[in-house]
Amino acid sequence: MSKFIVIEGLEGAGKSSAVQYVTDYLKAHGVSRIECTREPGGTPLAERMRAIVKEVHEEQLTIQAELLLMYASRVQLVETRIKPALREGTWVVGDRHDLSSQAYQGGGRGIDTGLIHAIKQAVLGDFKPDLTLYLDIDPALGLQRARHRGELDRIELEQLSFFERTRARYLELAAQDDSILVIDASQTPDRVKAAIELALDSRICIPG
Amino acid sequence: MSKFIVIEGLEGAGKSSAVQYVTDYLKAHGVSRIECTREPGGTPLAERMRAIVKEVHEEQLTIQAELLLMYASRVQLVETRIKPALREGTWVVGDRHDLSSQAYQGGGRGIDTGLIHAIKQAVLGDFKPDLTLYLDIDPALGLQRARHRGELDRIELEQLSFFERTRARYLELAAQDDSILVIDASQTPDRVKAAIELALDSRICIPG
Repeated sequence: MSKFIVIEGLEGAGKSSAVQYVTDYLKAHGVSRIECTREPGGTPLAERMRAIVKEVHEEQLTIQAELLLMYASRVQLVETRIKPALREGTWVVGDRHDLSSQAYQGGGRGIDTGLIHAIKQAVLGDFKPDLTLYLDIDPALGLQRARHRGELDRIELEQLSFFERTRARYLELAAQDDSILVIDASQTPDRVKAAIELALDSRICIPG
Repeated sequence: MSKFIVIEGLEGAGKSSAVQYVTDYLKAHGVSRIECTREPGGTPLAERMRAIVKEVHEEQLTIQAELLLMYASRVQLVETRIKPALREGTWVVGDRHDLSSQAYQGGGRGIDTGLIHAIKQAVLGDFKPDLTLYLDIDPALGLQRARHRGELDRIELEQLSFFERTRARYLELAAQDDSILVIDASQTPDRVKAAIELALDSRICIPG
């Protein structure tokens, strides 16, 4: 049975490379049907929601609207791409999923956890990834890396303290949920790759 | 103190004319500062959310994403335009507000009322219009009028039964809430105008 594997982490943690490591691993283990998704976004309509959330605007996007757009984008992606893919045996590797909203909007923005959970439960029910790999990095280091990449988006322009709260929430949630593994993303790429492969070895069973 | 007055109703009920009647009435009674809003939309960012909801797409927008976009647009409008206007003594006349989501998404689409209420409460709290005028019309007649106007949007393309459920929910909610008045919109424009003025006379106190 195909699985939904998610990569999570702060800006500059190396999520894109990690998605590549996971897909390479799956292919090397004989998985031929793999779809990669990203959030927010991942479908034409969800990408339009992403643009509203990520672009720097003159008008300030309220934190409540931001949260609702994240979930609107997510439910659109889950219902139109992720669930259909899983039903037909395709593996899905996601660049971000629900944990991001809990960490960024809950931890970073300080939105009440109960409210986020109520919205999640209402629109996604019990749907969740089979495995989440959280790439943990010091926000100062991550942002330094992200800045090297080029222009920062609206969320990446937040203060360091915002990312520190986000990271703390990521670690808190990972400690409470067996399906979330923490990967030390401050290591060299080779070591991160090895840690991801080890995590997949221990958690993912691919029918031979 | 300024008030928030909302016009509600199905397609073709005559909401635009009603907004005009209300603003004319307010001006005639000495109110000089009036803002008109529409939902979904009403701010540059909320208008982008409106476009996602209203345009006809190849990709089907899920009903959950539609609901969340409606509330994202609403909270953005309330926090960035309606509340600031009311705080500075400007009257606000709204073409649709929260009752639309309860009637269309709740009645028309059949989304659980408790869920809609939970989202509303979470992002809007107790904020509500001072007066809502619901223009009641038989959906068959309303759609006929709307079709005369030109091309129909994604929601206007729904089946008649969808609008019948929406109307039934509007009437149900109006019966439960003293701040919602039902106006018979099948009458001639002159009579609708007179009914709206009578409703405003009875419910709105304008400091002289």
